[in-house]
Amino acid sequence: MSLLVTGSIGIDTVVSPFGRAEGVLGGSAVYFSYSASLFTPVRLVGVVGEDFPQAFRDKLIDRGFDLTGLETRAGSKTFRWQGSYEGAMNEATTLQTDLNVLGEAGPKIPTEFRDSRFVFLANTHPTLQRDLLGQLNGPEVVVCDTMNLWIDTERDSLMKTLSVVDGVVINDAEARSLSGQSNLVLAGRTILEWGPKFLVIKKGEHGSMLIMPDAVAVLPAFPTAEVCDPTGAGDSFAGGMMGYLASCGTLTAATLRSALARGTACASFAIEGFSLDGISRCQDGADVEARLADYRKVVQFD
Amino acid sequence: MSLLVTGSIGIDTVVSPFGRAEGVLGGSAVYFSYSASLFTPVRLVGVVGEDFPQAFRDKLIDRGFDLTGLETRAGSKTFRWQGSYEGAMNEATTLQTDLNVLGEAGPKIPTEFRDSRFVFLANTHPTLQRDLLGQLNGPEVVVCDTMNLWIDTERDSLMKTLSVVDGVVINDAEARSLSGQSNLVLAGRTILEWGPKFLVIKKGEHGSMLIMPDAVAVLPAFPTAEVCDPTGAGDSFAGGMMGYLASCGTLTAATLRSALARGTACASFAIEGFSLDGISRCQDGADVEARLADYRKVVQFD
Repeated sequence: MSLLVTGSIGIDTVVSPFGRAEGVLGGSAVYFSYSASLFTPVRLVGVVGEDFPQAFRDKLIDRGFDLTGLETRAGSKTFRWQGSYEGAMNEATTLQTDLNVLGEAGPKIPTEFRDSRFVFLANTHPTLQRDLLGQLNGPEVVVCDTMNLWIDTERDSLMKTLSVVDGVVINDAEARSLSGQSNLVLAGRTILEWGPKFLVIKKGEHGSMLIMPDAVAVLPAFPTAEVCDPTGAGDSFAGGMMGYLASCGTLTAATLRSALARGTACASFAIEGFSLDGISRCQDGADVEARLADYRKVVQFD
Repeated sequence: MSLLVTGSIGIDTVVSPFGRAEGVLGGSAVYFSYSASLFTPVRLVGVVGEDFPQAFRDKLIDRGFDLTGLETRAGSKTFRWQGSYEGAMNEATTLQTDLNVLGEAGPKIPTEFRDSRFVFLANTHPTLQRDLLGQLNGPEVVVCDTMNLWIDTERDSLMKTLSVVDGVVINDAEARSLSGQSNLVLAGRTILEWGPKFLVIKKGEHGSMLIMPDAVAVLPAFPTAEVCDPTGAGDSFAGGMMGYLASCGTLTAATLRSALARGTACASFAIEGFSLDGISRCQDGADVEARLADYRKVVQFD
């Protein structure tokens, strides 16, 4: 089933205890697409500047994304982010953000993409998320991300977006802040009252929680000693999850649980290398299933 | 198989968003025993003061513990702790600690208990832990807890204790501090090099991780909206784990994984009420298995 993603496409500089990656490919929509494309064809919608390197464009083409929705805006510069990780590496310290083209008008959904059935709206202004959604011909499943900035400053608009999506994927701090509930199960129940059919809470090294109206699923992260660069882990998770869901074509408690596991596996690959190096080692769904075989042993008990 | 526990027996005052419990039964050995006794008979070793209420003693008797090793020390007062929980309730704020009898000479292992095959040394000075161990006739499986105070101030003694135990159960902050490693898998591998056959890392609301020489297991906590009082959750976890292991009588990767799940279930009961009220609703192993049936659905995926 066709899967469309809108989000950032960026140039990152990342420092971690494992080294430094300067001017590398990044962005939420890119991380998402690398994982999602392991399961289903991906339609990538976003805007870059004139400075976006051809080598990065080639990478996106090589990975097989449909780039009809990738706009290269004349006179603009690509989004750039610099961050560092220390200690438990659970959270990035942002050293610099240059919004550049992301501070201008949003992307447009190409005509050819308007029939997309599964849609992921990566984090951006909630009004832009609804604007993008309005350009689509009634997709079946729409899932969005958001961030504390919008929870704090654009709450009314965000609530409108939440009322028109099927699912939400956010991290634990965002879930707490958005709901005003410290307990994550209560946070999830509160957010579901506002419209979504399901909420996924990303907990970094602690895994994820899926809250549905009448059930909760929790999966730990795949335990690894090789955490090189956590950048994009959450977007890789969302990509694996949505890619798997789109490949199933149905949104049920069972497919959501399975999708959560695929997201977990994809995120575990993503953090093993800088930029897209980790997830790039994963070439197809079989690689994901191989990791899931290891993962099943990790969570197994009698 | 006989299970002996040494640790604190205390009188707690706890404040949480759910209310206040004043002068209630607590202590690591008590929480441990309430869970462990769901699987196997428990021998409780500890010291209380003359002020220890008869009503508390009756509770311990009613729960069926062998109190031959419970010393009531004349002229001494029972250990008291006051703490409060806020927000995500992951960590207690200690308001007051009165060591009282815990600051005096440690307990003695009664002659009748020297043949104990499974032993849990709850947190206390690592030298006292070895002293207690020396009073036993070569138990089969010895597991200890510790705390940051000893990691920071009694490292040499703690290293000696680690070299003579089979397993260690500590929380994530302690594992990181003890090992000097931020990554929990690496922290676990480092600690195993010092002697133990396995390490269990308690992660509060995020569950637990079991690290063995050639395998890792990770289980999330049971997701619940009813977190009333997290006091003793870790000791309840350890009690469920050790009680189950002692009931199996063997220490294998498979029994450890199963024990981790029983510990998870016991901790989930313990936090549902103040003091021992939560775990007291659990009357036998069947109640634990019923919760595990729910838990299996939470972590299940295809």
